Amino acid sequence: MNVTVWNEYRHEKTKPLAKNIYPEGIHQVIARFLKKDRVSVKTATLDEIEHGLTEDVLDSTDVLIWWGHVAHEEVSDEIVGKVQQRVLEGMGLIVLHSGHFSKIFKSLMGTTCDLKWREAGEKERIWVIDPAHPIAAGIGEYFELEQEEMYGEHFDIPAPDELVFMSWFEGGEVFRSGMTYKRGNGKIFYFRPGHETYPTYYNENVQTIIKNAVKWAAPVKRKRPVYGNAKPIEMLKGD
Amino acid sequence: MNVTVWNEYRHEKTKPLAKNIYPEGIHQVIARFLKKDRVSVKTATLDEIEHGLTEDVLDSTDVLIWWGHVAHEEVSDEIVGKVQQRVLEGMGLIVLHSGHFSKIFKSLMGTTCDLKWREAGEKERIWVIDPAHPIAAGIGEYFELEQEEMYGEHFDIPAPDELVFMSWFEGGEVFRSGMTYKRGNGKIFYFRPGHETYPTYYNENVQTIIKNAVKWAAPVKRKRPVYGNAKPIEMLKGD
Amino acid sequence: MNVTVWNEYRHEKTKPLAKNIYPEGIHQVIARFLKKDRVSVKTATLDEIEHGLTEDVLDSTDVLIWWGHVAHEEVSDEIVGKVQQRVLEGMGLIVLHSGHFSKIFKSLMGTTCDLKWREAGEKERIWVIDPAHPIAAGIGEYFELEQEEMYGEHFDIPAPDELVFMSWFEGGEVFRSGMTYKRGNGKIFYFRPGHETYPTYYNENVQTIIKNAVKWAAPVKRKRPVYGNAKPIEMLKGD
Amino acid sequence: MNVTVWNEYRHEKTKPLAKNIYPEGIHQVIARFLKKDRVSVKTATLDEIEHGLTEDVLDSTDVLIWWGHVAHEEVSDEIVGKVQQRVLEGMGLIVLHSGHFSKIFKSLMGTTCDLKWREAGEKERIWVIDPAHPIAAGIGEYFELEQEEMYGEHFDIPAPDELVFMSWFEGGEVFRSGMTYKRGNGKIFYFRPGHETYPTYYNENVQTIIKNAVKWAAPVKRKRPVYGNAKPIEMLKGD
Repeated sequence: MNVTVWNEYRHEKTKPLAKNIYPEGIHQVIARFLKKDRVSVKTATLDEIEHGLTEDVLDSTDVLIWWGHVAHEEVSDEIVGKVQQRVLEGMGLIVLHSGHFSKIFKSLMGTTCDLKWREAGEKERIWVIDPAHPIAAGIGEYFELEQEEMYGEHFDIPAPDELVFMSWFEGGEVFRSGMTYKRGNGKIFYFRPGHETYPTYYNENVQTIIKNAVKWAAPVKRKRPVYGNAKPIEMLKGD
Repeated sequence: MNVTVWNEYRHEKTKPLAKNIYPEGIHQVIARFLKKDRVSVKTATLDEIEHGLTEDVLDSTDVLIWWGHVAHEEVSDEIVGKVQQRVLEGMGLIVLHSGHFSKIFKSLMGTTCDLKWREAGEKERIWVIDPAHPIAAGIGEYFELEQEEMYGEHFDIPAPDELVFMSWFEGGEVFRSGMTYKRGNGKIFYFRPGHETYPTYYNENVQTIIKNAVKWAAPVKRKRPVYGNAKPIEMLKGD
Repeated sequence: MNVTVWNEYRHEKTKPLAKNIYPEGIHQVIARFLKKDRVSVKTATLDEIEHGLTEDVLDSTDVLIWWGHVAHEEVSDEIVGKVQQRVLEGMGLIVLHSGHFSKIFKSLMGTTCDLKWREAGEKERIWVIDPAHPIAAGIGEYFELEQEEMYGEHFDIPAPDELVFMSWFEGGEVFRSGMTYKRGNGKIFYFRPGHETYPTYYNENVQTIIKNAVKWAAPVKRKRPVYGNAKPIEMLKGD
Repeated sequence: MNVTVWNEYRHEKTKPLAKNIYPEGIHQVIARFLKKDRVSVKTATLDEIEHGLTEDVLDSTDVLIWWGHVAHEEVSDEIVGKVQQRVLEGMGLIVLHSGHFSKIFKSLMGTTCDLKWREAGEKERIWVIDPAHPIAAGIGEYFELEQEEMYGEHFDIPAPDELVFMSWFEGGEVFRSGMTYKRGNGKIFYFRPGHETYPTYYNENVQTIIKNAVKWAAPVKRKRPVYGNAKPIEMLKGD
């Protein structure tokens, strides 16, 4: 299993609050806890050549994790196209928090992916809605994040294939905060929490969920479908 | 209820077989049977200015029907963007047959929308899978089209919100041939049959289904969601 | 359109708080606002012969609304069986609030339909999750009920076909509070609010939603599927 | 991983054709190929005490496979209730072929589970509809069973959570032939083929699918949800 953690990696260089919590970047924290799970992990960031997502890297990635926020527009359309193609070919994709507005997520969803938001350091309580889902393994009925950015409904996404988590916010909103989609041969998991100014990715429940999601999103081994002109399998009456 | 029937309108001008069956274009045949249903119908075609889809036309359209095939690439990205925005704002969209490969359908689905196909004039039998769905009203257990182009699985689309019809083909394939999606405030129905060289749009069952779909896809009257920064509704503890 | 409003009608006779708010029973309040919508409405209650749900009544009911709480066990299995059969044949069913534990809802869902609950008169805020759904017509982004019983996740139901509303509760819980299912030829809508000691069914938003749900749940006009032994439609090779 | 294969085990004792193909019973053939997958397998049959499904057996079963046909009514309601409870608690359930009419499947689905059928030894072609699904791992675009009983739509089941396979039949029908449901904490997979007079369970693709389904249906390790009266997590305003 080869995981690539992609991070925009801007806030952690320029925003003291983010730098303080994630001095080496959010990607390094995620990479570190994944490695404990006997998973092979690479990282890639926006400012590397081809954003660190060369064909070699993409071809050898089973699951790609995506964190972005202020620089979505700087991600090249060409790379986004390649990532989308790889997802449709079977690569798993885990989109975190503000990645809801990334080009790759919007391309795969077909909607605006817009939502309500508020940075007020309020409490988030994340409830398990689908107790049979492997991404919820090891998670109690709910867990809390003492301080998080709020995301509120309506979240403009297609109805998920599976709704796994729902959030309650102190300020009065709710949010579908963990859900799955299949697109082509690939699996996608969106997970809400993870604002750069809170230590969310150090939270044990958050780590468990991301680890579970990586396993869940692994590509399925089979030949990919063949498209285009097809000869009849059965004899046609006219023949 | 205002319906706009959009047609590429190329085959019917250049391909004798198509011209013979649809001398005034597929759009005119669809417009005609819809008008019998006390629906206000306009038509629009590729070669008109802005493909006939000016802002005025789009703004006053409740449900847009889309037929395209050889000239998908000639549809301007700008117009596609406007149509997509209108769907997300609430306009219904009915995509017919080879429209599966249109820019608008692919943008809204996020997948390749690829499939298997064969032009052999074989028999298609369309089964009702969801007997409670209003789009199936008035349709028997199945109906047959003596000659149609074959479309076969795998059809590379997101899992539909609702699967209403499934096709059996003489040559040995099956296909999800009628299904619904909601995207943003809008509803989408894809309906498989309708190759330009067969008289499919004169078929009574096909007409009933398209009429039903128009009613089903009508916009819902409510204020659209508000996105962006939001003040807390409840008092936060930190305040 | 013929609607039957079924009510257990016990609390309103014995519990002063409920009697005070619904002196003639919850069913009468629901019947009254539905009648304003040019719908033909009957009522039926537990203590009538056959619970008021004779074959005549069931056969002429397009949509059945169900409210029950303390006396679920007193509803006869025979009547439940008939109601289930009628739903599968096409009758719409709207299950309200504590009806989540009714025999009819549990039979149709196949799960325990259990949940968390609390009677503390706390605030409920109901958010629209599916802005394209006809049941949400006329409803703003959210509406509030100043005092309601709390129902919290996990709600042990099958994943809904469509999730229309989600609730935020003052005490920290969330709940899937409005959702649809199709079963056989029939449509089902579950709607959470409506505890007998609060004036919920006088709330304009609640009334709009129930009116919308009645329209949505109306039976589809078509011949019902035929089951059992079937002759081949196509000639088999062995023949 | 502990799997229990339950079989009615009647045809194989009395029907020469079935006896010939499955001399020790269908359950033994299934148990044998599962054991090759390093899975611990037990079998249980109708005529054993408590149908072989004692509490001990059920409590230690991770995934239960179910084959029944002529004797559905002989399965005791008490045992069915226990199996249903175990599924809702997390045990996986794989229902095969004529098990569509078993009490356990009908109880969990809430519908009649009726369908069209024909015993004519015709060809079935099973297509993969969901290429990203782990149950389709190792399966090509389609595979064929030269002779099978036909099952045709409409299949009276709830819309599946995931539709993995669809069947084409020589006689002109289609069928949703492999699909998943989650109910409570448990996962359910229904798989169509497997009539007792054909050697279907010796087919390599069929075996691969059942092996995949066993892995997919394994229980998720987490505490089960708590239901009933719940204290507020947040302080209520009235307090």
